[in-house]
Amino acid sequence: MRKLVFTLVALVFALPAAAQNYDAVATSQATANAVPGARRSPGNAIPVPTNEVSPQLQALIGAAYPPTFNAAPKNAAEWHALIDARAAIAAKNIPLMKEKFGVTVEPKIIAGVKTYIVTPKNIPERNRRRLLVHVHGGGYVFGPGEAALSEAILLAGFGGFKVISIDYRMPPDFPFPAAMDDAMAVWKQAVKMAKPQNMAIFGTSTGGAMTLAMVLRAKAEHLPLPAAMAPGTPWSDIDKIGDSYKSNEWVDNVLVTWDGWLGRAALLYANGHDLKDPQISPIYGDFSGLPPAILTSGTRDLFLSNTVRTHRKLRRAGVDAELNVYEGMSHAQYGFDMNAPETKEAFTDIARFFDKHLGYK
Amino acid sequence: MRKLVFTLVALVFALPAAAQNYDAVATSQATANAVPGARRSPGNAIPVPTNEVSPQLQALIGAAYPPTFNAAPKNAAEWHALIDARAAIAAKNIPLMKEKFGVTVEPKIIAGVKTYIVTPKNIPERNRRRLLVHVHGGGYVFGPGEAALSEAILLAGFGGFKVISIDYRMPPDFPFPAAMDDAMAVWKQAVKMAKPQNMAIFGTSTGGAMTLAMVLRAKAEHLPLPAAMAPGTPWSDIDKIGDSYKSNEWVDNVLVTWDGWLGRAALLYANGHDLKDPQISPIYGDFSGLPPAILTSGTRDLFLSNTVRTHRKLRRAGVDAELNVYEGMSHAQYGFDMNAPETKEAFTDIARFFDKHLGYK
Repeated sequence: MRKLVFTLVALVFALPAAAQNYDAVATSQATANAVPGARRSPGNAIPVPTNEVSPQLQALIGAAYPPTFNAAPKNAAEWHALIDARAAIAAKNIPLMKEKFGVTVEPKIIAGVKTYIVTPKNIPERNRRRLLVHVHGGGYVFGPGEAALSEAILLAGFGGFKVISIDYRMPPDFPFPAAMDDAMAVWKQAVKMAKPQNMAIFGTSTGGAMTLAMVLRAKAEHLPLPAAMAPGTPWSDIDKIGDSYKSNEWVDNVLVTWDGWLGRAALLYANGHDLKDPQISPIYGDFSGLPPAILTSGTRDLFLSNTVRTHRKLRRAGVDAELNVYEGMSHAQYGFDMNAPETKEAFTDIARFFDKHLGYK
Repeated sequence: MRKLVFTLVALVFALPAAAQNYDAVATSQATANAVPGARRSPGNAIPVPTNEVSPQLQALIGAAYPPTFNAAPKNAAEWHALIDARAAIAAKNIPLMKEKFGVTVEPKIIAGVKTYIVTPKNIPERNRRRLLVHVHGGGYVFGPGEAALSEAILLAGFGGFKVISIDYRMPPDFPFPAAMDDAMAVWKQAVKMAKPQNMAIFGTSTGGAMTLAMVLRAKAEHLPLPAAMAPGTPWSDIDKIGDSYKSNEWVDNVLVTWDGWLGRAALLYANGHDLKDPQISPIYGDFSGLPPAILTSGTRDLFLSNTVRTHRKLRRAGVDAELNVYEGMSHAQYGFDMNAPETKEAFTDIARFFDKHLGYK
């Protein structure tokens, strides 16, 4: 009997709703949602969207789950093995990107912190005195070294900006606040390399959260603020709090669920600190006085709520904040394929936003 | 056996995913999503979000499905009975709204079309020569007479604008293109009542689609365009095309599913015309040269994809387009409770956007 139930349950999960009888589903759903409270939805098969979505993005949207979505490393050695395996895959793409966008990448130690200086071959006159600071994504664990440079290369390439990308320390060896300490040490030096009003900070996912946390900490420490920021689909609430953590669970095919490696990385990074500390979950910070922001997400993004909560909270604090949400897109896929039109669109939009808000003299 | 399967299927639909064993779900989901293609997600119970969501909006998000979501009127008489029943409920609220916002409402025939002139008690000096045109929502079938005035009252009240709200003809008696013919007849007269550069068009859902279709038709007919528009969660693709029609099916507790009354209303309105006609599904129109637009949606909105597809297509056409997406919100709930902070926020944002883009001399 137990096996029968399991088989039937698996069958229902595998069945597309469309193949079930609509009237039976409607009746069952009406019953399940006849009282106020949690929203109940049935198992679902969501086809790959084709309208306003490029073939390249369709391929990303339709891709199978990453095999590591539910990885559960038991110790530091297992974390390192996972981190190294993912880094090896990501790093393969970097030489192709450098070539396509004609950028050079040079390692440089700034304030004792490892960074990369990403420089486009041609910097427009208007960008010569501008400087961007990049904090990469990867759940505070993934993306050591050159493996996390893709976003820096994309914005250097599409926007014609010089970028400092911070290779901050990460768990399992260096939990919170090492990453933020490294990022702030670099920021303090970076504002001597260009005028802060000619600078912006950007990053996606963990990098989006760090972008917000850096600006919050700069404000608290009375350091210069950048003139703009681009927290892309920011991990602004590191805990499983926010509607899309549930509504897009199992729908997003990049992060898939908080309960996989993602939540494990969150706890590893926080290392016992309060998950609502604004330096860990910047959504709980005071957004007043923050610089203009451009945010990017997708309708299937597990962090859609992180993004729109941040957008709304910025606007409620009177900050000029712009939101872009891509059809059918899961987490951070706007940076996955350097040849997808949506990648060009997203980074060109960010570059245009920075150009509007940054000084150039 | 058949009954057992049905019982078990119903059980799975009713079970919150959280109550199931996470590892079993992860395994089942990994298997179901190990190959590219449609995204498969399990039955889900999504709690009411509480962060960045007011108690009033939480009540709307948690509300049970509307009992009529799956209504299937078989003939004109049954449509009229349904339309009248819904109108009676909606109309009850109008006197309270008039009182709260201190607006007057006067019926007026313009170019042979029924309209209401909604006038706030105090019109700021800057708005004295400005005029807004409102097209209401309701799937092209609901909202005759005063029942559909709430949004016009909200923008008149929060923004201090004079508004013409169009009580256009609707199915079952008047299918496409009657609604659009009425709206355009009013527009042609309205541009003689104020300067077009001092005017905007707005509406939600069906009204959002009509806003876009009006501007497209004005462009095609070389009529004056408004200086701005606010297509709120627009029904820009009347067909069940777009990712959130599936990903937010059964999650949105306002429209619930295209396959209920909504799709039936779509076919009733289109009356055999091509659903991809840009006057019926404006997403298929040419957006170049359109005026600045502000769009509003929610993470649970069945029309989230309609909204973001429209936003992206406007921006790709070079139109200044602003997007606001509310945490946990289903379709059009930003206009449901006149006392919710999000209602004030959404309509104040639209008013501010209009103030930025409309002339005033």
